[in-house]
Amino acid sequence: MGNCIQGVKDFFLRPKNTNVRLSLPAVCFVWQIAMIILFGVFIRYDEESDTHWIEHRKSHNITSDIENDFYFRYPSFQDVHVMIFVGFGFLMTFLKRYSFGAVGFNFLVAAFGIQWALLMQGWFHSLDYTDGKIKIGVESLINADFCVAGCLIAYGAVLGKVSPVQLLVMTLFGVTLFAVEEFIILSLIHARDAGGSMVIHTFGGYYGLAVSWVLYRPNLDQSKRLQGSVYHSDMFAMIGTLFLWMFWPSFNSAITDHGDGQHRAAINTYLALASTVLTTIAISSLFQKTGKLDMVHIQNSTLAGGVAVGTAAEFMLTPYGSLIVGFICGILSTLGYIYISDTCGIHNLHAMPGVIGGIVGAITAAAASKEVYGEEGLINTFDFDGDFKDRVPTVQGGHQAAGICVAIVFGIGGGILVGIILRLPIWGDPADDNCFNDEVYWELPEDEESIPPILEYNNHMINKHQDMSESNFSVEQN
Amino acid sequence: MGNCIQGVKDFFLRPKNTNVRLSLPAVCFVWQIAMIILFGVFIRYDEESDTHWIEHRKSHNITSDIENDFYFRYPSFQDVHVMIFVGFGFLMTFLKRYSFGAVGFNFLVAAFGIQWALLMQGWFHSLDYTDGKIKIGVESLINADFCVAGCLIAYGAVLGKVSPVQLLVMTLFGVTLFAVEEFIILSLIHARDAGGSMVIHTFGGYYGLAVSWVLYRPNLDQSKRLQGSVYHSDMFAMIGTLFLWMFWPSFNSAITDHGDGQHRAAINTYLALASTVLTTIAISSLFQKTGKLDMVHIQNSTLAGGVAVGTAAEFMLTPYGSLIVGFICGILSTLGYIYISDTCGIHNLHAMPGVIGGIVGAITAAAASKEVYGEEGLINTFDFDGDFKDRVPTVQGGHQAAGICVAIVFGIGGGILVGIILRLPIWGDPADDNCFNDEVYWELPEDEESIPPILEYNNHMINKHQDMSESNFSVEQN
Amino acid sequence: MGNCIQGVKDFFLRPKNTNVRLSLPAVCFVWQIAMIILFGVFIRYDEESDTHWIEHRKSHNITSDIENDFYFRYPSFQDVHVMIFVGFGFLMTFLKRYSFGAVGFNFLVAAFGIQWALLMQGWFHSLDYTDGKIKIGVESLINADFCVAGCLIAYGAVLGKVSPVQLLVMTLFGVTLFAVEEFIILSLIHARDAGGSMVIHTFGGYYGLAVSWVLYRPNLDQSKRLQGSVYHSDMFAMIGTLFLWMFWPSFNSAITDHGDGQHRAAINTYLALASTVLTTIAISSLFQKTGKLDMVHIQNSTLAGGVAVGTAAEFMLTPYGSLIVGFICGILSTLGYIYISDTCGIHNLHAMPGVIGGIVGAITAAAASKEVYGEEGLINTFDFDGDFKDRVPTVQGGHQAAGICVAIVFGIGGGILVGIILRLPIWGDPADDNCFNDEVYWELPEDEESIPPILEYNNHMINKHQDMSESNFSVEQN
Repeated sequence: MGNCIQGVKDFFLRPKNTNVRLSLPAVCFVWQIAMIILFGVFIRYDEESDTHWIEHRKSHNITSDIENDFYFRYPSFQDVHVMIFVGFGFLMTFLKRYSFGAVGFNFLVAAFGIQWALLMQGWFHSLDYTDGKIKIGVESLINADFCVAGCLIAYGAVLGKVSPVQLLVMTLFGVTLFAVEEFIILSLIHARDAGGSMVIHTFGGYYGLAVSWVLYRPNLDQSKRLQGSVYHSDMFAMIGTLFLWMFWPSFNSAITDHGDGQHRAAINTYLALASTVLTTIAISSLFQKTGKLDMVHIQNSTLAGGVAVGTAAEFMLTPYGSLIVGFICGILSTLGYIYISDTCGIHNLHAMPGVIGGIVGAITAAAASKEVYGEEGLINTFDFDGDFKDRVPTVQGGHQAAGICVAIVFGIGGGILVGIILRLPIWGDPADDNCFNDEVYWELPEDEESIPPILEYNNHMINKHQDMSESNFSVEQN
Repeated sequence: MGNCIQGVKDFFLRPKNTNVRLSLPAVCFVWQIAMIILFGVFIRYDEESDTHWIEHRKSHNITSDIENDFYFRYPSFQDVHVMIFVGFGFLMTFLKRYSFGAVGFNFLVAAFGIQWALLMQGWFHSLDYTDGKIKIGVESLINADFCVAGCLIAYGAVLGKVSPVQLLVMTLFGVTLFAVEEFIILSLIHARDAGGSMVIHTFGGYYGLAVSWVLYRPNLDQSKRLQGSVYHSDMFAMIGTLFLWMFWPSFNSAITDHGDGQHRAAINTYLALASTVLTTIAISSLFQKTGKLDMVHIQNSTLAGGVAVGTAAEFMLTPYGSLIVGFICGILSTLGYIYISDTCGIHNLHAMPGVIGGIVGAITAAAASKEVYGEEGLINTFDFDGDFKDRVPTVQGGHQAAGICVAIVFGIGGGILVGIILRLPIWGDPADDNCFNDEVYWELPEDEESIPPILEYNNHMINKHQDMSESNFSVEQN
Repeated sequence: MGNCIQGVKDFFLRPKNTNVRLSLPAVCFVWQIAMIILFGVFIRYDEESDTHWIEHRKSHNITSDIENDFYFRYPSFQDVHVMIFVGFGFLMTFLKRYSFGAVGFNFLVAAFGIQWALLMQGWFHSLDYTDGKIKIGVESLINADFCVAGCLIAYGAVLGKVSPVQLLVMTLFGVTLFAVEEFIILSLIHARDAGGSMVIHTFGGYYGLAVSWVLYRPNLDQSKRLQGSVYHSDMFAMIGTLFLWMFWPSFNSAITDHGDGQHRAAINTYLALASTVLTTIAISSLFQKTGKLDMVHIQNSTLAGGVAVGTAAEFMLTPYGSLIVGFICGILSTLGYIYISDTCGIHNLHAMPGVIGGIVGAITAAAASKEVYGEEGLINTFDFDGDFKDRVPTVQGGHQAAGICVAIVFGIGGGILVGIILRLPIWGDPADDNCFNDEVYWELPEDEESIPPILEYNNHMINKHQDMSESNFSVEQN
C-alpha cells in the first residue's frame, strides 16, 4: 500500500524535462551577439541624435534645440516604456504562483524584442539608401516598443504554459511578422493606425490565440490548483492595469503628427478609457448573483476602450464619439470574459477590441470631410500627399478595412506556423500538472505561502472534508 | 445549546442588504449615457487640438508646433493622472482587507468624475459664447483631474463604510459643488490657487468630513478586526504615498503660467515636501515610547507640505519660505494623527494643511511688491489685468482669505446636504460589522489570509487564551 | 530546566539599546532648521524661475516661453525623481522583514540629502559672485537628486544593519564628499560624466563598501533567519528594478546638452540596458544546476548596463557600442553576484560597473575625432571652450581616467572616515541578532506572517524534523 502510494507519487512528481540550462543561455548569448553584429553593420544615429545636429540646425534654419524631435516625443516615449515593462509585466502577475515568470519573462522578451524590432522596422521603414544604414532616433525607440507590445500581448495567451526559450522564439518570429504586416498596412495600403488597433492589438491578439490553439493542452486541469489568484497578486496586477490605463493616451499619441495630432489623440483616448470603466463595472456587477465585482474584469476590460480608439484617436472622432467607442467596448469586453474563456483574456482585451478599433477607424476615415477637417487638416491627418495625393476619404476607408484583414491573416497564419515550431519537444516547456508554476524556472525563496505539489494538494482537499478526529493529519499536511 | 449558538450565528451572519446588482449597473449605464448625450451637445476640441490648428498657427504667426499648449502641459498632465489613479488609489490600500475597494472604487469614481467635471467646469470656465460649445484641450483634462481629486479626498473620509453607488452620488454632487466654488473663488473673487490648497484640499477635506459626520456609525467597533493594516498592505500604500509625493511638483505647476510660473511652482513644491518628511519623522518618533516610527504618519503627513504650498507655489514664496511651510505642516499634520483620530486622516492630510495653504497664500499675496516681482512680473503672476487691472497686492491678500472661507462653507454645507441624501436606506451600504470588508462588493480569490467572520473571530480570540487541551478547536476554526 | 531556558531566552531577547526617540527627532529638527537658515542666507530662484524672467526673455530676444530650461529638463527630472524615491526605495524591499526600513529610510535620507546637496553643489557650482547667492532651477533639482543617488547606493551596503540616525550622518558626509569630488572631477579635471558612472556610482559604491567594511559584524549570522526574501517582497523589489531600468535613459540624459546631446544619451542607455538583460539571464541560468533563474540577478544585474554607459552616453558611442557595453556588464555583474557576496550587491551593481563606465568613457573620449563628431560637434560635446579650448581628445581621455581615480579615492577614504565615526556607540544601531528587522524601528501591524524571535525560531526549525507525536507543540509555536 505504501509502495503503491509512493509509486503514484513518483509518477506525478517525476522530474520534468524543463531544464533550460543549455538552451536559454545559448539563445540569449547567440542572439545578443547577432544583434551586436547587425547593429554594427546597419544602425546609426539619425540626424537629430548625431553630433552633426548643430550643423543640420543651421542649414535648415531651425532656431532652437527645442525643435529637436526629442522634445516632441520623449515624454510619451517614457510613458510607453512604462506600459511595456511595468504595464504588461504586472498585468500578468495575477496568478498566485506565476508572478516571477510574468514580470521576469516579460522583461526578457521585451529587452530582446526591442533590439530586433529596431532592425526589422529599420529595414522596412528607415533605411537610408545613400549609405545603406538605418538611422534611429526617439521615434524609432517608440516604434520598437510598439512592436514588442504585439509580442507581449501574445505572451498573455500562453502565460504559464511555455518556457522562456519558447517565448524568445515566439518573439523572434512575432517581431518579424509584425514588421512585414506593418509595412503592408501602413506603407503599401497606406492605412493610418496611430495607436495600433490593427497593427498591434489585432495582430498580437490573433497571433497569441493561434499559437495557444496549436499548443492546446487537454489535461491542463492538472494545474488547476495554480490557476487562481490570491489577494495580493490581484493587487500587483492592478499596478499593471493602472499604468496601462493612465499612460494609454501617450501610447495612442506617441507617434502621431506634431501639434494638434498628438493633442487630439491624447484627448480621445482619455475619454474612451473613462467611459469603458463605467460600462465594465456595470456589466461585471450585473452578471453576478449578488452584484459583486470581479477583479478579472476590472483588471482587463477597463482597458478595452484604449485599444478600440487606437486607430481613430488621431482623427476628428469628436469627444462624444470617443465616449461611445469606450462605452461599447467596455460592454463587449466584459461579456467576453463572462461567456468566452481564455487565459489572460487576450481575445477580449486585444483581439476583439482591436478589430472594433479598425472598424471605427475605417468608418471615421470614410466619413472625413473638408468641412470638418479643413483642407490642409484633411491632407495632414491622412497624409494625402506624395503617391497618395489623389486619395479621397471614402477610398481611405476601404483601405483601412483592408488593413484589418491583413492584421488578422498575419496573426492567425503566423501563429499557426510558429505554434507548430513550438510543438517540437526540445524547448523545455512544463508538464501539464506543472503549468503556472514559478518553481519550474525560478529559484524561489522559502516561503510559508508555498503551493503544495499535486498529490499532497489532493490529500489536503480530501482532508478538508473529513471529520475532526482526523484533523491532526490535515494540520500536518499544511 | 447548539441551536442557540446557531441562532446567534444566524443573527450575526444574516444576509445584509448590500446587493447592488440593480443599482450599480443602473447608475453606471444611465449616467454614462447622459455623459455621451451632453458631450454630444456641448463638447468640442479647442483650437489647439482641432485639425484647423495648422490654419490657426499661420494666422497667429506661431512658428512651430512646439508652441502648442500640449507640449507645455502634457508631461505634467500625465504626472497628475498618475497621482489621481495610482496615488490616491494605492494610498487607501493600507487596510488589510479593503485594498480592492480602495483602488477599484477610486478607479470608478475618478473615471466618472473626470467626465462630469469636463462638463461642469466647461460651462463655468470655457464656454464659447459664439457657438455655445465647451472647447477642451490638455488644460481641461488637468482641471478635470484636479476636480476629481477633491472627491477622492472625500472618499478617504468614508473609506470602507459606503457602497460604490453612494460614492458615485457623492462624486456627482462633489464635482458640481466643486465647479461652483471654483468659479466663485477663481473667477468672481479672483483669488489665485495654482495647486488648489483651497479649491481642492480644503473643500474636498471638509466635504468628506461633513459627509462622514452625517453618516456616523456608533457601532463601528464591530468591524474592529478589519480596521488595521498588514505588512504588505502598508507597502502597497507606500506606492500611493510616493507617487503622490514625487509628482506633487507637477500637480502644483500643471496649470500655472508658462515659463517661470511653472518652473517656480515646481521648485517650491519640491522643497516644501522635502522639509515635511523630516519633521514628520521627528514627531512620529518623538511620540512613541521607544522612538519607533508609525507607518500611518509616513504614508500621510509627509504629503502635507505639498498641500500647504499649493496656493503660494507660483508666488515668490522663496526657497526658504517653502521649507518653512513644509516644516510647520509636517509637525501639525503628524500631531493631528496622534491627537485627532479619523479614518484615512482626511483632516490632517487635506483639510487642515489646505487651510494653512490658503493662509500662506493670502499672506504671500498681500506682501507681494514690485521690487520683488518686477512690474510686469507682478501683473503676470496675479493676473492684474482686465477687470482686475487696478487691484493691488494687499487687496488681493484679502480676497485670497475670502477664498478660504468659500471653500470651507461649500465643503461643510455641501457635505451635510449630501450626507443626508446618502442616509436614505436604498444605497446598499454595509452593516456595522461588515465595514472595511472587500467581501461585500467583490468576488474574492480563495486565500489563506482570509479574515474570519465576526462570530468565529471572537471564538478565535477566546481560544487563543485557552489551554492546550482545547487547542484543536482553535486550529479547526482557522 | 525551565528557569535555564528562560534565562537563555531573556539573554537573547534582552532589550537592545536601539531607542532613537531622542537622537532621531533631535537630528531631524536641528538639521532641518539649519537648512532653513542656510537657504534663507544663500538660496534664490535663478533667472528662469524668477518673475523677472519675462524681462530676461525680452532682453535676450528669446521668442517663446518654451525656451525656458524647464521644458527641456522637467520630464527627465520627474523620471529621475521616481528613480530616487521609488526605484532605489523599492529595490531594497526584497528582504522579508525590512521593507518598511528600505522604503522609509530611503525616503528620509533622500529628503534630507536633496536639501543639503542644493547647498553644497550650489556653493561649488552655481554661486553668483555678484550677490553671493546660489541660484537654483530645474537643473539644480536634478543635480541634487543625482547627489543623493550616491548616498542611496551607499545605503544599500549597510541595509538593515544601521539606525536611521547613522543613515542621516552617512548622508550628511556623503553629500559633502560628493560635492567636493564632483567639483574636482567635473570642474578642475574637466572630465565629462553625464550619467555619473564615476561621480555617482563609483563614488557611492566604494563609499558604501568602505563604511560597511569598517562596521563589519562577525556575528551577523545570528540574523540569518531574516536575511532572505519572500515571494511578495521579491515582487515589490521588482517595482524598484523596473522603474530604475525604464527611467535610466532619463537619468543619463537629464543634464546633457540640449538637442542631440539629450537625444543620443537616451538612445545609448536604452540599448545598453536591453543588452544587459539578455546576458544577465544567460549567466544566471548557466550557473544553476537546472538552469533556474535567480531573482537577485534579475533585480540587480539587469541595471548594470545603465551604470556602465553613464559616462559615455552623451558621446558618439554608436548604437552597437552601447550594446557591447551592456553585454559585458550583464555578464560581469551577474558573475559578481555568483562569486562575490555582499548585501544588496553594491559592488556588482554600482562600484564595478561604475569603474567600467569610467574606462569606457576614457577610451571613447580619447578616440573622438573631428571626422566622427564634426568640428562644432566635438567642441560642444566635450566643452572644449573657455579654459579648455586647446584640449584635444587624447588628453581628455587621460583626464577622464584621472576622474575614476578621484572617485575611488574619495569613496574609500571618505567611507573609512565616516565608518569610524559611525562605530561610536551612540547611534542606536541594532544588535547582531536583530539586523534586517523592521521591529526595531517601526510600529508593525499585527500580522500572521510575522517572523518569530530567534529562540522560538530555532525550536521551530528543530520541531520541523521531529516525529508526529510531538507535532502539536510545533503547531502551538506558530
